[in-house]
Amino acid sequence: MSSDTATLLLSCPDQQGLVAKIANFIYANGGNIIHADHHTDLEAGLFLSRIEWQLQGFNLPRDLIGRAFEAIAQPLEADWQLHFSDTIPQIAIWVSQQDHCLYDLLWRIQAKELKVKVGLIISNHEKLAKIADQFGIEFHYLPINKDNKKEQELKQLELLKNANIELVILAKYMQVLSADFLQKFPNVINIHHSFLPAFVGAKPYHQAYSRGVKIIGATAHYITQDLDAGPIIEQDVVKISHRDTVEDLIRKGKDLEKIVLARGVRLHLQHRVLVYGNRTVVFA
Amino acid sequence: MSSDTATLLLSCPDQQGLVAKIANFIYANGGNIIHADHHTDLEAGLFLSRIEWQLQGFNLPRDLIGRAFEAIAQPLEADWQLHFSDTIPQIAIWVSQQDHCLYDLLWRIQAKELKVKVGLIISNHEKLAKIADQFGIEFHYLPINKDNKKEQELKQLELLKNANIELVILAKYMQVLSADFLQKFPNVINIHHSFLPAFVGAKPYHQAYSRGVKIIGATAHYITQDLDAGPIIEQDVVKISHRDTVEDLIRKGKDLEKIVLARGVRLHLQHRVLVYGNRTVVFA
Amino acid sequence: MSSDTATLLLSCPDQQGLVAKIANFIYANGGNIIHADHHTDLEAGLFLSRIEWQLQGFNLPRDLIGRAFEAIAQPLEADWQLHFSDTIPQIAIWVSQQDHCLYDLLWRIQAKELKVKVGLIISNHEKLAKIADQFGIEFHYLPINKDNKKEQELKQLELLKNANIELVILAKYMQVLSADFLQKFPNVINIHHSFLPAFVGAKPYHQAYSRGVKIIGATAHYITQDLDAGPIIEQDVVKISHRDTVEDLIRKGKDLEKIVLARGVRLHLQHRVLVYGNRTVVFA
Amino acid sequence: MSSDTATLLLSCPDQQGLVAKIANFIYANGGNIIHADHHTDLEAGLFLSRIEWQLQGFNLPRDLIGRAFEAIAQPLEADWQLHFSDTIPQIAIWVSQQDHCLYDLLWRIQAKELKVKVGLIISNHEKLAKIADQFGIEFHYLPINKDNKKEQELKQLELLKNANIELVILAKYMQVLSADFLQKFPNVINIHHSFLPAFVGAKPYHQAYSRGVKIIGATAHYITQDLDAGPIIEQDVVKISHRDTVEDLIRKGKDLEKIVLARGVRLHLQHRVLVYGNRTVVFA
Repeated sequence: MSSDTATLLLSCPDQQGLVAKIANFIYANGGNIIHADHHTDLEAGLFLSRIEWQLQGFNLPRDLIGRAFEAIAQPLEADWQLHFSDTIPQIAIWVSQQDHCLYDLLWRIQAKELKVKVGLIISNHEKLAKIADQFGIEFHYLPINKDNKKEQELKQLELLKNANIELVILAKYMQVLSADFLQKFPNVINIHHSFLPAFVGAKPYHQAYSRGVKIIGATAHYITQDLDAGPIIEQDVVKISHRDTVEDLIRKGKDLEKIVLARGVRLHLQHRVLVYGNRTVVFA
Repeated sequence: MSSDTATLLLSCPDQQGLVAKIANFIYANGGNIIHADHHTDLEAGLFLSRIEWQLQGFNLPRDLIGRAFEAIAQPLEADWQLHFSDTIPQIAIWVSQQDHCLYDLLWRIQAKELKVKVGLIISNHEKLAKIADQFGIEFHYLPINKDNKKEQELKQLELLKNANIELVILAKYMQVLSADFLQKFPNVINIHHSFLPAFVGAKPYHQAYSRGVKIIGATAHYITQDLDAGPIIEQDVVKISHRDTVEDLIRKGKDLEKIVLARGVRLHLQHRVLVYGNRTVVFA
Repeated sequence: MSSDTATLLLSCPDQQGLVAKIANFIYANGGNIIHADHHTDLEAGLFLSRIEWQLQGFNLPRDLIGRAFEAIAQPLEADWQLHFSDTIPQIAIWVSQQDHCLYDLLWRIQAKELKVKVGLIISNHEKLAKIADQFGIEFHYLPINKDNKKEQELKQLELLKNANIELVILAKYMQVLSADFLQKFPNVINIHHSFLPAFVGAKPYHQAYSRGVKIIGATAHYITQDLDAGPIIEQDVVKISHRDTVEDLIRKGKDLEKIVLARGVRLHLQHRVLVYGNRTVVFA
Repeated sequence: MSSDTATLLLSCPDQQGLVAKIANFIYANGGNIIHADHHTDLEAGLFLSRIEWQLQGFNLPRDLIGRAFEAIAQPLEADWQLHFSDTIPQIAIWVSQQDHCLYDLLWRIQAKELKVKVGLIISNHEKLAKIADQFGIEFHYLPINKDNKKEQELKQLELLKNANIELVILAKYMQVLSADFLQKFPNVINIHHSFLPAFVGAKPYHQAYSRGVKIIGATAHYITQDLDAGPIIEQDVVKISHRDTVEDLIRKGKDLEKIVLARGVRLHLQHRVLVYGNRTVVFA
């Protein structure tokens, strides 16, 4: 017996009967709901919902579910996405010189904690090519400087397109993506090595040390055109003390970065994250 | 315009259409859902749900809602409770000699963080009578020893009954309640000063010190006849070090106890906790 | 037998033999060290130390200890402070309209968690006068507006002087102290209701909500002339979710504020905090 | 210029002058202390200390330091250890079938977070041989059953001896070591997948699920003959909810296990841990 599921993520202006309408659609077609969570942002007048049901026994064939649901969604002026749990998306991991997040993601993918296929690794340095090799993944070395950035981004976009990449994970990729790039490929998760909005920009651990904070953090967020200001998916922190040098902050931060990025990516891949405005609802 | 709400807490054997049936009931009567959260324990084959909707605009008068819902609940073999947000329950706080949880609860009630009326305070010591006085609350001194316990419990039950008490909070009441008592008054929340199931029973901070743990905790739970084994509502922890003496553990623990108990009580009062078996679902 | 202790807090340029020189001074005079902790900031070339020893059996009378130690400290170009554990300092608590930190501090002082005497409470509102009353503490209502600020600060300074106040605790005092004031009375601890340096200035919970963070924090720090930029003593955080409104952040934040402020004040009162530059060493 | 250091770990009955005597020894020989931390357990009457100083400029040759210090230590009845920071110890990692801690440790060793040489990997299963291969480390497959345990332990001891192993890390090695083995090789760190002393023994995540706890933990500890009762080095926890199945606990627990074990091993390798009775002092 298959345990495959369909997941609906939806947001629309709040009104009466929304839960009933969605649940009825699934019930009427013989679906058994295994996860349903809703959130109403009363201030924004917005209803946001995630519903997951078993495909086993569901009467609608997959390719008709979306079309059928659109008849319900349209009058509600809803934005919605439909996902199937057995679809394994292609992703790209982008790195610079640090290997900890890359190793961590690859281990989790191998251990099936994250259900994706890594189509390619892109880096502006050659250093981590050997890890790509070790895991049998295509590696593309695309060095960036201020003269070639535009051109290299075109190559990056081409690579993403050819490999059917749906999601880019910036796993300590120390370059800013242009507004142009993001318009063409908006689906990007980044790990920022601070507790945003504290310490945006470069060298956050040096900034944290110099401010004398007692806790450091890491933030997984979607990339937008505003540097380090995109919607936050996940954050975590760790205590530090006066004994910790900048090097200690960097070391301790790596453990945070790995875990926070992995959690953020997992939530995204399980279709548990809905973005609205500059905020996220995380149905966890 | 009133912002009063009704909340339905329900559990029943899992089957198709449950979310739809409940949501339809509310929609059909003109209700606007502001919180809906469901959980399916696939292993136990159980569906558990919390739905809260605005009474403003709801077509059924309050006294008919339950009767009308019973028609839906019965065929589902559902256990359910219906609560109204403007009902202010009477509670009793039981204490022994320590005042930190009592002060903390009274402050939160005064600050309207907890919407209850404290009908009475019961203690097996006279020490905290002056706090009851300070806040204008009835105080009953009922000393307990092994000879008078049965008799005192009868007095306690009488006091609870006369004051229409719905919930007893053991705010560091250092006595065990008998099986008899709990059968007659089962609605009791306790704060245990350890991270259960570690260090059950007496003097958990001494036990923790002697075991050399690096973290201590506190646990808010419903009382059952098994000492310290009832369903857990909330837990939290704090790091300690070799520098901390037993007295430091006790001091640090007090901050935990206050917060964990207050959170547990608040979740209960907002009808966010469903008990099944020895577990809780917390719709937070 | 007395358990009183002396505590030496010292910082000086790093060089060989510092621990030996200080320890020898105490040993030569018959002192038994019960806490000794040192930190070397290699980058700053600075040695920082806290040593606490039992006065019982110490051969130097109290009033000579400082003079004797100065002979050792001077050639080291050391800044140092000497404190005795049985000195109970006078403090002032300043508040505006929120009572949670005030109540919390007064409870801790009453419970002897914090060994101080509250000489007076100052507020720019009358609202909390009744709490001062309840605990039998002098209350001074000094409303502030942009015209009378200078004049009111003079009154405040006079009050502090007359009551021999050594430390001011801003327990949610929602006014900025002038540079002038701080020059005359620099010993001020503040609780800021955010995880600094995130969300400086006004309404940090509104800022946090609008940024969509997943964790909020609180910071206890010494006040300097740079708003919210003084040396940090203690910070802590709590997780939040999309379900939390601004009001929930404020409520959850209050628990953080109470605990973080209390911890910061306790560390200060136990002479465990050394400030250098804009940083603190916390010998905890 | 070398940055190598010597570290002295010492415990002895408490008495006056201990800090002075140790610090004088280092100062008299031209040493510059970079870390000094002391702890007095007043109840046990025990003084415990860690002092680290630069070897650069120290007048005693390495091989004489211990002999010279013994003259000071003997009259104090002190237990002491002397370590040099440039000594890279040989360790063995023991595993069963789970690879997460092994991968994590090997990554940290490669990244120089942990300064050791892995002499060999021992397992009672063949499954992880390929990881040993990948990192070029000797792998020994020694299956255990109740008939061959004694014989296999003799082989294990022989392997440890031949490879000059100083420390064994049980990185999810799901076998109990015999009292005999531990007498011959006592230096063993284990990661237990619960917040000890909660859930000792087998299947702690199943136990945690069935108890309905709201937080799970992991514990790094030295192994003694009492199962799961040895001195604790490090613990950490993570929140869980009713939505988490046993599989989720296992997955979330893996992240804890990796970090807690790595922290425990690092503290041990930096000679920051002193065991006394069943407790540890962690000079961190």
